Amino acid sequence: MTHLLLFIALAAGPVAAVAGPLAPAALAEAHALREQALADDTALDLVRSLTTEVGPRPAGSPADARAVAWAITRLKSLGFVNVRAEPVTVPRWVRGEARAEIVAPWPQPLVVASLGGSIGTAPAGLEAEIVPVTNLAELARQPPERIAGRIVFFTGRMERTRDGAGYGRAVAVRSHGATEAAKLGAVAMVMRSSGTSATRTPHTGAMSVANGPPPIPALALANPDADMLERQLASGLPVRIRLSSTAAWDGEAQSANVIGEIPGRELRDEIVLLGAHLDSWDLGTGAHDDAAGVGIVTAAARLVGGLRQHPRRTIRVVLFANEEFGLSGAKAYAASYASTLDRHVVGLESDSGAFQPYGLAARVGPDRLPLVRAMQALLEPLGIAYLGAEASGGADLGPLRELGMPVIDLRSDVTPYFDLHHTADDTFDKVDPALLRRHVAAFAVIAWLAAEAEGGFGRLPVTAAAPAVSR
Amino acid sequence: MTHLLLFIALAAGPVAAVAGPLAPAALAEAHALREQALADDTALDLVRSLTTEVGPRPAGSPADARAVAWAITRLKSLGFVNVRAEPVTVPRWVRGEARAEIVAPWPQPLVVASLGGSIGTAPAGLEAEIVPVTNLAELARQPPERIAGRIVFFTGRMERTRDGAGYGRAVAVRSHGATEAAKLGAVAMVMRSSGTSATRTPHTGAMSVANGPPPIPALALANPDADMLERQLASGLPVRIRLSSTAAWDGEAQSANVIGEIPGRELRDEIVLLGAHLDSWDLGTGAHDDAAGVGIVTAAARLVGGLRQHPRRTIRVVLFANEEFGLSGAKAYAASYASTLDRHVVGLESDSGAFQPYGLAARVGPDRLPLVRAMQALLEPLGIAYLGAEASGGADLGPLRELGMPVIDLRSDVTPYFDLHHTADDTFDKVDPALLRRHVAAFAVIAWLAAEAEGGFGRLPVTAAAPAVSR
Repeated sequence: MTHLLLFIALAAGPVAAVAGPLAPAALAEAHALREQALADDTALDLVRSLTTEVGPRPAGSPADARAVAWAITRLKSLGFVNVRAEPVTVPRWVRGEARAEIVAPWPQPLVVASLGGSIGTAPAGLEAEIVPVTNLAELARQPPERIAGRIVFFTGRMERTRDGAGYGRAVAVRSHGATEAAKLGAVAMVMRSSGTSATRTPHTGAMSVANGPPPIPALALANPDADMLERQLASGLPVRIRLSSTAAWDGEAQSANVIGEIPGRELRDEIVLLGAHLDSWDLGTGAHDDAAGVGIVTAAARLVGGLRQHPRRTIRVVLFANEEFGLSGAKAYAASYASTLDRHVVGLESDSGAFQPYGLAARVGPDRLPLVRAMQALLEPLGIAYLGAEASGGADLGPLRELGMPVIDLRSDVTPYFDLHHTADDTFDKVDPALLRRHVAAFAVIAWLAAEAEGGFGRLPVTAAAPAVSR
Repeated sequence: MTHLLLFIALAAGPVAAVAGPLAPAALAEAHALREQALADDTALDLVRSLTTEVGPRPAGSPADARAVAWAITRLKSLGFVNVRAEPVTVPRWVRGEARAEIVAPWPQPLVVASLGGSIGTAPAGLEAEIVPVTNLAELARQPPERIAGRIVFFTGRMERTRDGAGYGRAVAVRSHGATEAAKLGAVAMVMRSSGTSATRTPHTGAMSVANGPPPIPALALANPDADMLERQLASGLPVRIRLSSTAAWDGEAQSANVIGEIPGRELRDEIVLLGAHLDSWDLGTGAHDDAAGVGIVTAAARLVGGLRQHPRRTIRVVLFANEEFGLSGAKAYAASYASTLDRHVVGLESDSGAFQPYGLAARVGPDRLPLVRAMQALLEPLGIAYLGAEASGGADLGPLRELGMPVIDLRSDVTPYFDLHHTADDTFDKVDPALLRRHVAAFAVIAWLAAEAEGGFGRLPVTAAAPAVSR
């Protein structure tokens, strides 16, 4: 703690030097906010409550509806205003039961999970030889007769990196593997989990269904089970597996984006947007993904709302519906607020877990970077560096960024995150209260200064709407 | 490696000084054996083969029979003689399917595993309120009306320690919890896993069935699921759960102890026994428990058998049947060899996983300790200290120790072991080849020197046969 205070003292000089658009009083408030956040467990209480009292909350499920009710109650009780649930129609997919076993050469059970959006098998299941390929490019090079009637096994392993770069590569197979395998006549697709866990907890997640659900079942193997298939394949003998799954699509359901605000004192129509998503995958309780984000943005906004005076601009917390299975809430929000998007001055999202934050990146008008540096200087004592201008805003803010909204990313170490992301292991016990508080401190400082800053953050070029990638 | 060689050079002096019962040539061979073992992957190959080609092999299952056939083939092909399968009758218990969910106050699925020997529920399952108690002593203090008609939830958490002391305490609940809860009228028992894993992979293991299977279903909760129950209980509201299980007993089956020998050149009737167990629990593939032990003792004996001359005494590898569910093989061996037990000069067992070995303990005649110190001096460069005379020999050697056979323990760090022991996570990828080789080196050195030593190891006092505890 002494160490931390020393860093804070050292940081005070540079803050003052680069803080042109920020009044000294605003910087002093930011400093106090940071310290207050580092001693505040509102976020932890929210994560505990959401994971315990609601638990797994896949879009369109009864628990998803309970999550919406939970969020409205919590935002109101924490003093937010304009609290509302804005209806969002979501697709409903039901996991059912999935089983897999090796039939030959050496019978063994396998631990699997259906990918989000997978169809099921016939009730009797299906059995076929597996054909290993590393990735989509290798699949594309296979002669169709090698694939037809067989089960494609994607063997590519996700690389562990602090910035999560390995996930983007691994998830391409999850998104498109089944569709591409089906084109070559495969009867099913299995893949090594798009995650780094060495436990028997496979990774689920959405497939691309832009052209409808892939026509063959698609399942993820836990990493040790993928290893087992590889070892049996190494014998040179044909490896046959049996799969069964009752996964199914089940129409649509109503969910909602839940919104609450800390109203601005001067520029009430200008919005600093803090986003997270309320839904989760069903295998765990969505503790890091994304109860943590819900807790972080809610607790941060509440701290700002508790200051002696409200921020100049409005801070809007948006808890998005159905991030995981098609970004329904993000798309609905962008459509609903199309006419006022130019008044969304900047957006931040928390959806990468609550491990060690290490950096800030901001995609804002180039002349606004001194403002970002001033924010970062206040966060330097937390170990948060300035990482430049390549910010994405995250999955739920993607549609808004594409429409010109500036975005700021708080980057955190996702090495441990991808050991539990989208698996049964994403549970409350994995949340470190001290690290969670650091996230809250960062979000509170950024939100407050963004709401106070003279002149906003500029606008980004409007880009063609790219296909949204679910994280 | 240079560092290691330096240690070896430093160790040479003390070895010579304390090695009364050992010829210099025998010590030189031990030194060479150790170095050879540290470059030999026979054990790793065996672990890979048993986990891949047989996999989970609970006593009495078809895979258990395949494991027996596998072991006979492997021992023969590695040059063992007198290779044989000695029949052992084993009880057969079938896990079936187990499910659990919280019904109130907040519905959530739970991840559970039936304890070994548990009966199932009625097909419709059962639902009741849970009553938390920490351990058996706290259960015993409860008024029966608090327990009757309810599900007892044992909340005690296994402590992480290098020597596994926490396991002994935690496993008392697994062994006796259901029986004691049933006496007070409970309708089922659930417990926090007797393991330290933070993943959703519950720990199975045998219950005491000395007086027949406990009359109520008994299931272990993964640690995060036990946390969930505790958080829901913290609300002060009654917590109700629903359980269903198709676990069942299914008579008896034939298994076997598989034995192979490196015959002694002089004292062929005197036995140095190296033990491990061939069966495993069914959730994982029994990689550390106890394919590792099978690999270690087999590879160590083979290395000794490959020396220029055979050891004076016979080295006998015994791969015991059904350690996990009642020590059937250990009891059968002790009964079969009752008349020649006095010619079993010493025994060692490998059944605590293959993590960092750190010490040697030996329960031998007090005048034989210099011999043990000579062994330890050769293992000091591997980080193996002398730990005194409190050795148990392990579960499978228990009956022989009670009948007077001296035992030596190689202790290894079980902190990581109890993250995977008896869970689905006990898989081949968790085996570190370098650590496995250290175990082989230690077993080879000890076995060789034990087989060479003048005068044997004395005899232990014969103790009353204590109830065997399955590890």
